[in-house]
Amino acid sequence: MPVGTKGTVKGLTAGDLHSTGIGVVLGNTYHLYLRPGADLIREVGGLHAFTGWEGPMLTDSGGYQVFSLARRRKISERGVEFSSVYDGSSHFFTPELTTRVQQDLGADVAMVLDECPPANASREYHANSLRRTARWAKRCKEAHSRQDQALFGIVQGGLYPDLRKESLRRTLELGFSGYAVGGLSVGEPREEMLQTLAAVAPKLPDEKPRYFMGIGDPVGILQVVALGVDMFDCVLPTRLARHGAALTAGGRVNLKNASYRRDFGPLDPECSCEACNSYSRAYLSHLVRENELLAHRLVTLHNVHFVGELCRQARAAIFEGCYEEFMKARIACYGDPAGRVAFRHGLMDAIIRQRRND
Amino acid sequence: MPVGTKGTVKGLTAGDLHSTGIGVVLGNTYHLYLRPGADLIREVGGLHAFTGWEGPMLTDSGGYQVFSLARRRKISERGVEFSSVYDGSSHFFTPELTTRVQQDLGADVAMVLDECPPANASREYHANSLRRTARWAKRCKEAHSRQDQALFGIVQGGLYPDLRKESLRRTLELGFSGYAVGGLSVGEPREEMLQTLAAVAPKLPDEKPRYFMGIGDPVGILQVVALGVDMFDCVLPTRLARHGAALTAGGRVNLKNASYRRDFGPLDPECSCEACNSYSRAYLSHLVRENELLAHRLVTLHNVHFVGELCRQARAAIFEGCYEEFMKARIACYGDPAGRVAFRHGLMDAIIRQRRND
Repeated sequence: MPVGTKGTVKGLTAGDLHSTGIGVVLGNTYHLYLRPGADLIREVGGLHAFTGWEGPMLTDSGGYQVFSLARRRKISERGVEFSSVYDGSSHFFTPELTTRVQQDLGADVAMVLDECPPANASREYHANSLRRTARWAKRCKEAHSRQDQALFGIVQGGLYPDLRKESLRRTLELGFSGYAVGGLSVGEPREEMLQTLAAVAPKLPDEKPRYFMGIGDPVGILQVVALGVDMFDCVLPTRLARHGAALTAGGRVNLKNASYRRDFGPLDPECSCEACNSYSRAYLSHLVRENELLAHRLVTLHNVHFVGELCRQARAAIFEGCYEEFMKARIACYGDPAGRVAFRHGLMDAIIRQRRND
Repeated sequence: MPVGTKGTVKGLTAGDLHSTGIGVVLGNTYHLYLRPGADLIREVGGLHAFTGWEGPMLTDSGGYQVFSLARRRKISERGVEFSSVYDGSSHFFTPELTTRVQQDLGADVAMVLDECPPANASREYHANSLRRTARWAKRCKEAHSRQDQALFGIVQGGLYPDLRKESLRRTLELGFSGYAVGGLSVGEPREEMLQTLAAVAPKLPDEKPRYFMGIGDPVGILQVVALGVDMFDCVLPTRLARHGAALTAGGRVNLKNASYRRDFGPLDPECSCEACNSYSRAYLSHLVRENELLAHRLVTLHNVHFVGELCRQARAAIFEGCYEEFMKARIACYGDPAGRVAFRHGLMDAIIRQRRND
């Protein structure tokens, strides 16, 4: 899911998004609640009508932004008070409010309000937090009334396997249309992230979507998919694009690099997006150097298309029963050092073996 | 001609430009010479190949930027020395060099190097300058060798009818594939601009394109077309767009205006561009407020499309023999105060009558 922070995946039209073949767009409740306001979006018929994107859409609860952006915030059992990143004004998110706001936004999937504690929070903090998150999830479910909108629960618990299990149990008890794993990919080593996910993912119901919150690098995507994840989101592909870095089958291409100034070949020879079809690396490199709008637009289009294509190929490999081979070949080709390390340690092999035995 | 300053009409792809139906794109020799360099663009086969725009293209000589952007410059008979707006480095443009650079860029139309003196320059300065511009034009013509590229001369002479006539005579004597009128729309009152143009335009050969340099507001376009102009360029439509102002049949729409926040109608109901077809004023207004890339892109697309459509309608009205009525109706509808003033003074009527009698 590319992230359409403020009702737009930066630089792309709904038509562009359609052309990339991506399945779901994520909207940020935090931003849309503050600007232009959920009442305005409800008035026009929801986020689909407002943005022109007719495909599936998911909104987060806004919790992550409250915890990562707010200069000051105060959590209580009732909810979380925070100051707006736009104008410092004070707001109070409760499970009931974020549910109502998401119903106004009208995405196909809404998320429960959760707390995403900092990576270095104590075990005790995580334990208390996941229990409050479970109580909030219950209130979200009770407040949720739209029949045409799914509501997903979120499993927290930091890097503690037993706390993850507790959060999983509490969330499954409530029962949701889909389950997310949150609080990972927030600064911890990739190995710990994968091990924690591996302890949770196999216990999520097979028939419900599994959403890993916050991963978008190609190697990471391939790894969480290996662990059974169906959905994921991240600003990485679009943010990288605005810094002139393209995701390609051969690894990241930093278009500011001098070697691309006279490189008249396509950005990614294996890609069929408009940026790769119609323009050269030399032209894109020129646009990036000059900080041109078209650079941001075309590289964003490419990166979203790249991730969409990676997912289509992954899905095909799963159906063909050759996902592990596919993943290893793609990661080797991509040449990501972090991915290689994980492979050198045999971690993924061990995780996959373990998953088979579960 | 929308202006593709640095090899891109800001935010638009070649495909977008094609969809607007505009006839010619202008490239800035000054910027392209400095970044990425004419040698690189020649190497890839010219500006068409580099930018992906396969339609007609015109490059200016770079002179206007030298005279308007350079922090320091020194004009001599041989050429003009200036410091780069990018890094302050020193460069020397001669008629021969700007012609060679434009041949490397390979647009369909190249322009002679001229001096565009400041609006407040003395009569004596203008007289000397237009004579030097004529000598430079001769050198450009001698240096120009591409058979697949037209070279246009430029008439200067400030607001002095006799100097304009002298420049016209000198330029016509040299003989070019087309003729531009330069040095107008540089800060003088619109009435003086039109009167000066009216003194020159009817004397330009009917069978050659007539290019008015630097006008892009709808009323101004309609007025110079009434005086026989075929081509014009200006950054106005694209620059306005990046400030959130849209050109519409009913006048300028400043999307930052609070009244558009809940305006769920199209930007311009008469327009068929993607911005008007697929999005509401409320959505565009939200994007403009949030300074989103997509705002710049969509409003730019609309403004270029609007000017293209205005030109198509003007052309049709000319062929149907009802241009004056068309122009007056459009200006009245557009509601531009400057245009009304010109009409109140009967200026345009007088000019058009005079032209008929010439």
